[in-house]
Amino acid sequence: MAQAVNERQAAALLAQSDRILILCHQKPDGDTLGSGFALLYALLAMGKTARIACPDGFPPRYCFLYPGFVPERQPDFTPSCIVAVDVADLQLLGAWAGRLAGKIDLCIDHHPSNTGYAARLLLDAKAAATAEIIDRVLRELGAQVDYRIAVCIYTGLATDTGCFRYSNTTPASHLLAARMMEHGIDSYRINKLMFETKSPARMELERMVMDTLEYYENKRIAFIAMTLDAIEKTGVPEEDMEGIAAIPRQIEGVDAAVTFQQKGPERWRVSMRSSQYVDASAACARLGGGGHARAAGCTLEGTLEAAKARVLGVLRDVLGTQDSLKAEGSQGGKDLVV
Amino acid sequence: MAQAVNERQAAALLAQSDRILILCHQKPDGDTLGSGFALLYALLAMGKTARIACPDGFPPRYCFLYPGFVPERQPDFTPSCIVAVDVADLQLLGAWAGRLAGKIDLCIDHHPSNTGYAARLLLDAKAAATAEIIDRVLRELGAQVDYRIAVCIYTGLATDTGCFRYSNTTPASHLLAARMMEHGIDSYRINKLMFETKSPARMELERMVMDTLEYYENKRIAFIAMTLDAIEKTGVPEEDMEGIAAIPRQIEGVDAAVTFQQKGPERWRVSMRSSQYVDASAACARLGGGGHARAAGCTLEGTLEAAKARVLGVLRDVLGTQDSLKAEGSQGGKDLVV
Repeated sequence: MAQAVNERQAAALLAQSDRILILCHQKPDGDTLGSGFALLYALLAMGKTARIACPDGFPPRYCFLYPGFVPERQPDFTPSCIVAVDVADLQLLGAWAGRLAGKIDLCIDHHPSNTGYAARLLLDAKAAATAEIIDRVLRELGAQVDYRIAVCIYTGLATDTGCFRYSNTTPASHLLAARMMEHGIDSYRINKLMFETKSPARMELERMVMDTLEYYENKRIAFIAMTLDAIEKTGVPEEDMEGIAAIPRQIEGVDAAVTFQQKGPERWRVSMRSSQYVDASAACARLGGGGHARAAGCTLEGTLEAAKARVLGVLRDVLGTQDSLKAEGSQGGKDLVV
Repeated sequence: MAQAVNERQAAALLAQSDRILILCHQKPDGDTLGSGFALLYALLAMGKTARIACPDGFPPRYCFLYPGFVPERQPDFTPSCIVAVDVADLQLLGAWAGRLAGKIDLCIDHHPSNTGYAARLLLDAKAAATAEIIDRVLRELGAQVDYRIAVCIYTGLATDTGCFRYSNTTPASHLLAARMMEHGIDSYRINKLMFETKSPARMELERMVMDTLEYYENKRIAFIAMTLDAIEKTGVPEEDMEGIAAIPRQIEGVDAAVTFQQKGPERWRVSMRSSQYVDASAACARLGGGGHARAAGCTLEGTLEAAKARVLGVLRDVLGTQDSLKAEGSQGGKDLVV
């Protein structure tokens, strides 16, 4: 298992190293990229030899984090120190996992699920983003935050907090955002790009998915379906589907919002989000799945209609027995049957 | 015209007054309500007699700002001091405007367009929300920020910055958010309610509007239409339509996003948002409207098809003549004609 280190120890390791390789996780997001490039820029400014790598490359969507960056033009060297940022599990290094096993010197991360695969682990599960921890490491290093680094850290923070909406957001997240904004970054453009820009294909997929919206039990249950047919027709890549499953969750008054995502001809991934009146974990457990009280899932085999019928059966049961408001004076939730 | 005052002078006026009436603007939003109730709670805690009023009443959507509040149970008195918060124009007091003319003692606002209708005006156009200014007035008053006040100020700030996304967001906005969060408020629930909760009717209207999405000129132009028929069928009230016009603006690569909102049998309100390649103001001016370079509008008479044809004609012209990238080596944008 990894040795736990603090910011000062992590900074000391980096300060005494040269030829540093920084690793981001596969399917890279704003936090792994923002954290990785913030660290890279700081190390380069300190005169160190360093490079960054990601098993899936560097997506154009985040090009504002690395203007003019050409991965192949980075210095080639045998690293003396390998640092993984925001990488919770060695497997998230994809095809590289095998040959990197036992070779990661330091991991900087905020995922409580971190498997401790690195020699040293700087973990703060209370940080909303790994970028928050990187900022503290840079301070220990005495590195100057410049405009580019501020863009990277702000982006990591904004993406992992859903622009300060998610419950992981803390006062410290806002204080860090304020400090990064002092560097004159254009947070409006960053957020527009991260949260408000959709490809025409994604827009079309959303439209098709919204057309499948169905309600049951006085609109207390909402279902949407995302079929392989819709995904193929629109050509939306997996990494661009984030948030589509959240559509039914936004509807006022819905106690159980369920997304059926087709994974094979007769295979459906069921994602359930619930209000306080429904235990999603218990409902999904009855269908062979599991999860948390407010967010759970399962996988069902069969036609879409059969999958819907099974989920609906369990939810009707759960609503009938668990909802004290409606159950009062009624018999086993009979009044809820459509 | 109003006498300009600073936070200290506004606080002094409030400190020496009793029987204070606080006014919010019609079609109340999170900022006018958050600002108004924050001020109300602080004045009541100081032992003052005060009440709050809004020409459109207090919407249930914001009930978390005023738990248990019953407007009619407020003390009845002839006010000695009338304060308008976030009210840029006397007309925004709706039916009350006439009898309140010349009677507002103090206006606290952040709209640069404030008409100066009050005797004294505390205006900071750089504040992202009136709630930011209220916070400073409370500090001058020596008022203690408690949990309820923190919820109000955070909500005003979050709603007027689009949860820290809009370009009006400053480092000061984040610092204030951090300070309010220290009071233990549930910012996740507030933001979920403000930004991620849609009525089933609104969801249905969005679905109908998305079904009208059309592209032209290699997807550089996007049109959506919101008909009176769709509005009537879904029964979505005006105040619940915010953001629907923004749908086509989110599409990647679109240089001109246009929403046609039906205002009468043959009357269309056209809203145009554009990228740097299109001057929306110039385009709308040619259709009898106006606005800013990136956001403009006009009103057209006739059928929807005729309105679309007119807008498309102007935009094709603008794209053909203004887009140096595409026009290069081509003749008057001919290659752009669908």
